[in-house]
Amino acid sequence: MIRPATPADAAAITALILPAIRAGESYALPRDMSDRDALAYWCAADRETFVMEDGGRLLGSYYLRANQRGGGDHVANAGYIVAADVQGRGIARMMAHDSFDRARAAGFAAMQFNFVVASNRRAVALWTSLGFVIVGRLPHAFRHPAAGVVDALVMFRSLKD
Amino acid sequence: MIRPATPADAAAITALILPAIRAGESYALPRDMSDRDALAYWCAADRETFVMEDGGRLLGSYYLRANQRGGGDHVANAGYIVAADVQGRGIARMMAHDSFDRARAAGFAAMQFNFVVASNRRAVALWTSLGFVIVGRLPHAFRHPAAGVVDALVMFRSLKD
Repeated sequence: MIRPATPADAAAITALILPAIRAGESYALPRDMSDRDALAYWCAADRETFVMEDGGRLLGSYYLRANQRGGGDHVANAGYIVAADVQGRGIARMMAHDSFDRARAAGFAAMQFNFVVASNRRAVALWTSLGFVIVGRLPHAFRHPAAGVVDALVMFRSLKD
Repeated sequence: MIRPATPADAAAITALILPAIRAGESYALPRDMSDRDALAYWCAADRETFVMEDGGRLLGSYYLRANQRGGGDHVANAGYIVAADVQGRGIARMMAHDSFDRARAAGFAAMQFNFVVASNRRAVALWTSLGFVIVGRLPHAFRHPAAGVVDALVMFRSLKD
């Protein structure tokens, strides 16, 4: 149900991620990013991209990568998107667990999110419930289209459990 | 004395940054990075690179970029390197002030360092003296070749002053 993305997923991944990018409320990416650039970001060479499929439809996708290189490459980073009409069904949570397993299997010792928009309370609650702790708060780091200037959080979770 | 880097600086920049990368004590970059990749990193398309020159010799270099895109692109990020034999003469401090000025002129409201190795006490002291505050601590995030596993710090400074 959750598998590596393939080139055949390109159109479905683009359709999945564009609404979140256009909304500009959770990802620090240009809201007017082209379809091509959005896909190139989500499936860049420095990361592995996975999709959660159900009955031929993509419900969500995530990417997994090293957050830093060299002496910092034992800490993973990931980003997740769930299709708008299936949110609240635990899909992000399932993808998160899958990403923890894959990150552990790849040898990562921990996972870090660099930029969780503080006004995104559902995301903060989800990551907290999954064992992430807030290790940093970036003051006024994000211009939210509706909430104005808000903080962003750095969240961190060991994978040794 | 501090000016934008040009292609003619390529060899001197490479010679300047390689010792710090090879040492692996301050930058989260592969210690065995090729000369070409190191230069490509320092002068990547997403940043502006500057050099501090004295009598035809490069004493230091820094890059300046947006730390995030989209709703986070009002916060700058920078990286600095000083030639080993001229450290302790205030060159990093001069480059830092120059970078603050240029970042302000480019419209940035703040500057963030994402990954200051906690064992690099000189760097932490310098940034603190320049108005940066520690807004995050990444536990065990860096494998230091001599000190072992150490924390990394997230440091943040408003540019509105």
